[in-house]
Amino acid sequence: MLIIMREHVSENCIDKVVEFIKSKGFEAHISQGELHTVIGAVGAKTIDPRNIELLDGVQEVIKITSGYKLTSRIFKEDDTIIEVNGIKFGGGNVGLIAGPCTIESYDQMDKTADELEKSNVKIMRGGAFKPRTSPYAFQGLGEEGLKIFRSVADNHGMAVTSEIMESSQIDMFEKYVDIFQIGARNMQNYNLLKDMGKVTKPVILKRGLSATFEELLLSAEYIVSSGNKNVILCERGIRTFEKYTRNTLDLSTIPVIKKLSHLPIITDPSHGTGLRDKVAPMSRASVAAGCDGLLIEVHYDADNAICDGAQSLYPEEYNMLYNDLKQIAPVVNKKIY
Amino acid sequence: MLIIMREHVSENCIDKVVEFIKSKGFEAHISQGELHTVIGAVGAKTIDPRNIELLDGVQEVIKITSGYKLTSRIFKEDDTIIEVNGIKFGGGNVGLIAGPCTIESYDQMDKTADELEKSNVKIMRGGAFKPRTSPYAFQGLGEEGLKIFRSVADNHGMAVTSEIMESSQIDMFEKYVDIFQIGARNMQNYNLLKDMGKVTKPVILKRGLSATFEELLLSAEYIVSSGNKNVILCERGIRTFEKYTRNTLDLSTIPVIKKLSHLPIITDPSHGTGLRDKVAPMSRASVAAGCDGLLIEVHYDADNAICDGAQSLYPEEYNMLYNDLKQIAPVVNKKIY
Amino acid sequence: MLIIMREHVSENCIDKVVEFIKSKGFEAHISQGELHTVIGAVGAKTIDPRNIELLDGVQEVIKITSGYKLTSRIFKEDDTIIEVNGIKFGGGNVGLIAGPCTIESYDQMDKTADELEKSNVKIMRGGAFKPRTSPYAFQGLGEEGLKIFRSVADNHGMAVTSEIMESSQIDMFEKYVDIFQIGARNMQNYNLLKDMGKVTKPVILKRGLSATFEELLLSAEYIVSSGNKNVILCERGIRTFEKYTRNTLDLSTIPVIKKLSHLPIITDPSHGTGLRDKVAPMSRASVAAGCDGLLIEVHYDADNAICDGAQSLYPEEYNMLYNDLKQIAPVVNKKIY
Amino acid sequence: MLIIMREHVSENCIDKVVEFIKSKGFEAHISQGELHTVIGAVGAKTIDPRNIELLDGVQEVIKITSGYKLTSRIFKEDDTIIEVNGIKFGGGNVGLIAGPCTIESYDQMDKTADELEKSNVKIMRGGAFKPRTSPYAFQGLGEEGLKIFRSVADNHGMAVTSEIMESSQIDMFEKYVDIFQIGARNMQNYNLLKDMGKVTKPVILKRGLSATFEELLLSAEYIVSSGNKNVILCERGIRTFEKYTRNTLDLSTIPVIKKLSHLPIITDPSHGTGLRDKVAPMSRASVAAGCDGLLIEVHYDADNAICDGAQSLYPEEYNMLYNDLKQIAPVVNKKIY
Repeated sequence: MLIIMREHVSENCIDKVVEFIKSKGFEAHISQGELHTVIGAVGAKTIDPRNIELLDGVQEVIKITSGYKLTSRIFKEDDTIIEVNGIKFGGGNVGLIAGPCTIESYDQMDKTADELEKSNVKIMRGGAFKPRTSPYAFQGLGEEGLKIFRSVADNHGMAVTSEIMESSQIDMFEKYVDIFQIGARNMQNYNLLKDMGKVTKPVILKRGLSATFEELLLSAEYIVSSGNKNVILCERGIRTFEKYTRNTLDLSTIPVIKKLSHLPIITDPSHGTGLRDKVAPMSRASVAAGCDGLLIEVHYDADNAICDGAQSLYPEEYNMLYNDLKQIAPVVNKKIY
Repeated sequence: MLIIMREHVSENCIDKVVEFIKSKGFEAHISQGELHTVIGAVGAKTIDPRNIELLDGVQEVIKITSGYKLTSRIFKEDDTIIEVNGIKFGGGNVGLIAGPCTIESYDQMDKTADELEKSNVKIMRGGAFKPRTSPYAFQGLGEEGLKIFRSVADNHGMAVTSEIMESSQIDMFEKYVDIFQIGARNMQNYNLLKDMGKVTKPVILKRGLSATFEELLLSAEYIVSSGNKNVILCERGIRTFEKYTRNTLDLSTIPVIKKLSHLPIITDPSHGTGLRDKVAPMSRASVAAGCDGLLIEVHYDADNAICDGAQSLYPEEYNMLYNDLKQIAPVVNKKIY
Repeated sequence: MLIIMREHVSENCIDKVVEFIKSKGFEAHISQGELHTVIGAVGAKTIDPRNIELLDGVQEVIKITSGYKLTSRIFKEDDTIIEVNGIKFGGGNVGLIAGPCTIESYDQMDKTADELEKSNVKIMRGGAFKPRTSPYAFQGLGEEGLKIFRSVADNHGMAVTSEIMESSQIDMFEKYVDIFQIGARNMQNYNLLKDMGKVTKPVILKRGLSATFEELLLSAEYIVSSGNKNVILCERGIRTFEKYTRNTLDLSTIPVIKKLSHLPIITDPSHGTGLRDKVAPMSRASVAAGCDGLLIEVHYDADNAICDGAQSLYPEEYNMLYNDLKQIAPVVNKKIY
Repeated sequence: MLIIMREHVSENCIDKVVEFIKSKGFEAHISQGELHTVIGAVGAKTIDPRNIELLDGVQEVIKITSGYKLTSRIFKEDDTIIEVNGIKFGGGNVGLIAGPCTIESYDQMDKTADELEKSNVKIMRGGAFKPRTSPYAFQGLGEEGLKIFRSVADNHGMAVTSEIMESSQIDMFEKYVDIFQIGARNMQNYNLLKDMGKVTKPVILKRGLSATFEELLLSAEYIVSSGNKNVILCERGIRTFEKYTRNTLDLSTIPVIKKLSHLPIITDPSHGTGLRDKVAPMSRASVAAGCDGLLIEVHYDADNAICDGAQSLYPEEYNMLYNDLKQIAPVVNKKIY
């Protein structure tokens, strides 16, 4: 921690700050600049920097250890590669996940899976428990939906990912899914994150609507430090002043996370834009920016989807997109299965 | 729902939209404007407006029923008044809640309560389970903390409020707290909200970091529609581009919520600003804007607080603030106990 | 400038950074922490910190001199007090400015001034050149409007403030106004700011829609460093994700600016909220938070205002508000004329 | 304009609203829904919708005519193609512009141009008048810089684009530049926009830091409606809560603007990210998303650039990027010269 004193402060101010940080268990290292005295506080303890900022003569306090460790690129230099059902995320691989927003019926899942199979989809998405802004909106089929999903996926040789809402659902989810999904609204549900550290299956962790990159990595750190190294980060759009798109898909997340962390980073252009005709351009852009995977909503009959049909691709659109992505990936030295 | 067609669209476009909404179970009412045709879709069903926006010739689709009903001022014209330990929130009353961010020890709580008693505090706050961004930060004393808190509060004739993290803690919390608190990060933890509908004690629901007023009311609607009418809304700062303050305390929330809803609205200027010397001005401003209560961090020894000491008032500062607030309240026809 | 190196970097990395900053004309002071080496770069030169951040082994670079000097509280400890027509801003005084958004006609200005006189208004606002989002919206009466305004103000013993759009208008404005106003959209129109430094009349500088506190002070620094010390800062709402209010009026600006700068800070709750019934609560809140003045839209016939009538008070509402403010001001040791 | 009345309002309320809008010169069309009465207000006049929102019983007022007309895709279905020095923007063409942030010297411009020539660059960028947040930062070489730029460009057969700060500079700029550039801070400098309508050379109009898509198009509408059809829109990053990147480059701008408008849309990944190693990924992403061009900072000696060197590419990086872009463009049916 570095404490920057204001210009021309008295010795007395400096002494008081030094005394204060020593009383908190830190060593103090003073360095005299031309205009500013800087005090380095070294120690294993933690202290809220704002406590020091309130002392007389202090201009600013800088924390110099970032909070995330196990998820950082410094801790592990090579890409973490996560493989599910033959599909890899990270390390030069772009993994594709597709499927409807919500599990509606056996028929709907089966027909959608039939279509997705034609485009080589090996991991299917679908929600059984839906976090809805309004209590009066459709909340999902629940466990019944997961049963349907598992059965359809097995018949098509596909793996399954679905969103979990709270820790009490873990045992039940273990029976049906291959990849857990933590939604944006739960990115800082710390009890759930810790419990995700105790499962062995991979976890897709979505960035919260107003979460910084550092907060996203710290939430991943909760999972990894609790024991589960298989975390896939997911950019799904942040909330800004612009309302034309449902959210603002922040593609700079991709190169930023690739630099800071070894974990795979994928994007969800369906939620990120909320509009079907924006999904393909933003998917192509994601691959061109170097993402490790995509999570795309596809519904065999998107016009009649119960939920988010407007942001779901038709199967034939997905197929065209898949062909585009296979051409873009090699330009950035990536492989798509 | 109103469907605004683009200028000069063909009859064919209009027919297709009408057909589509009828197929979804709506009646269609066409109204021909000078430039635009507008189609009103009337019915009890719900449909994602974006599905219609994607049809040819559609310019915009407007939902005209707001999602919240039981929490709206239209549903109940008079202020809901919530009373705890003789302190009232709403209906011309400003209720004050004070106490430290975190329960650290019996001694800390006891000394703080001794001080707060001098300023007439009847409801004390304190966290036992802390949602921390980093997994390596202090996470609170847990149930042990709540026991301490209850015991101290009983000795001082005070009521207790503390933040609950997930549904599995409800039975335990019931033993210790008088008011449940839902933190900003859990504002859209819908399972927890529904379960809060089943308790009878009041619930303070904090606005999420990037939640709109409508989303805040919809989250309250989850609680109220599940059976618990005693919800106190709380503005605690939103996330914006400005980083000097920890958050941006949005005081317009107060007159806006007072207009839209009958529920009490309080503010938390401690988290809202994150800086001790900003807490008093923003507390005074909250009362002048017409809030129904305040949630303020006070620590008997703020310099040595484990958590958020930098935004906690010293007891003597709280006392001065209390005196200021008692002078401002009558100007806006409010009472402070 | 402080350069924080990553944990465990090689001597070689450190040497290269030292060499680099020396080549740029800085002295290097190395300080060895437990985990991090920190290099202090001292010198009169400026350098983009990102150039250093891109060097191997560098974790972060911290600038330790804030850019604003003449506007800072460190440079001048006492409040700057600006007086116009007997009304003071700063130093324990709350100055009030009221009037319509737009100058529409002699009759409209005259009738509004008649009303405002009853509430002791001594400085009147009114726009002659309007910055409108759409090219098809009413753009103001121009110089003709300023003539009308001056004549009405003289008849009522009032001073005049109006928004200037570009430097070429300065000579013309000098003939009519007592206080120049720089709108939010021009907060970073640096040519205009520099030219405002050459006039002697006070300047109200509005915070941009997405300007930080530091940027606001740096824009004021442009004016002050060019020669005009009479700058009044104005919070008028920032742009956030919340769309219910036109903007989000950030009242924490008041205590923050009062700490950082000696310049007066006022608020504009009319533009800040965009809704008439929110103006009075937010005005009271501003005074309770310690502002040095208010800029309020009032129109004698608000229902028929050409522009922004929906956020203008009726004269009788303004009068009631004025009475409230006179009661709140003494609580925070302020005077209102 | 559509006026949505609250549920179950009285006839009296409805009558008053109808009377009010008639008094403003509109026709009223009443449509009775199941829950809500909707009043359509038709007419050529404009009125601030908030004036109606304040009437009793009104829930919401919806404007149904978007403000931009000449810039909309409805007005002109085909892409506008703008050609400068053989480089085309729009209509299946991706135009590239490269060069340093700031003109520093003849030598610097000449050496950079030498390098750019190898990558086929035909339009060069460079700033002579720099809008700097601090009055103490380097403000550019001014007209002297433009002279240097023109001379270097002529020697290399290149066209020139540079940022103009205010209308008084137009005549001078006409002598040196081929494309005018309006910076983000001037996107709503309406006097400048109107004057840009009177020149014949193309204008690059950058999106403001907190400007919506609609505001960007309305600013373009100022230029086009004043007579200059050659406007190139530019996404250069918006301001959000995330501070790791300098701005948040919003690539969804590309498909959104392509749908709403016929004007070309380009991106500036250098300002959009502020970090050199993020420029190439975001440039590739822009092309994959369907942009009509790119504006990229390149400096022959980026480490020693006076301004923004940290976000400037080295010439060899630009060359590699150029090769990548040429491979991605055909996937989205675009050509790069």
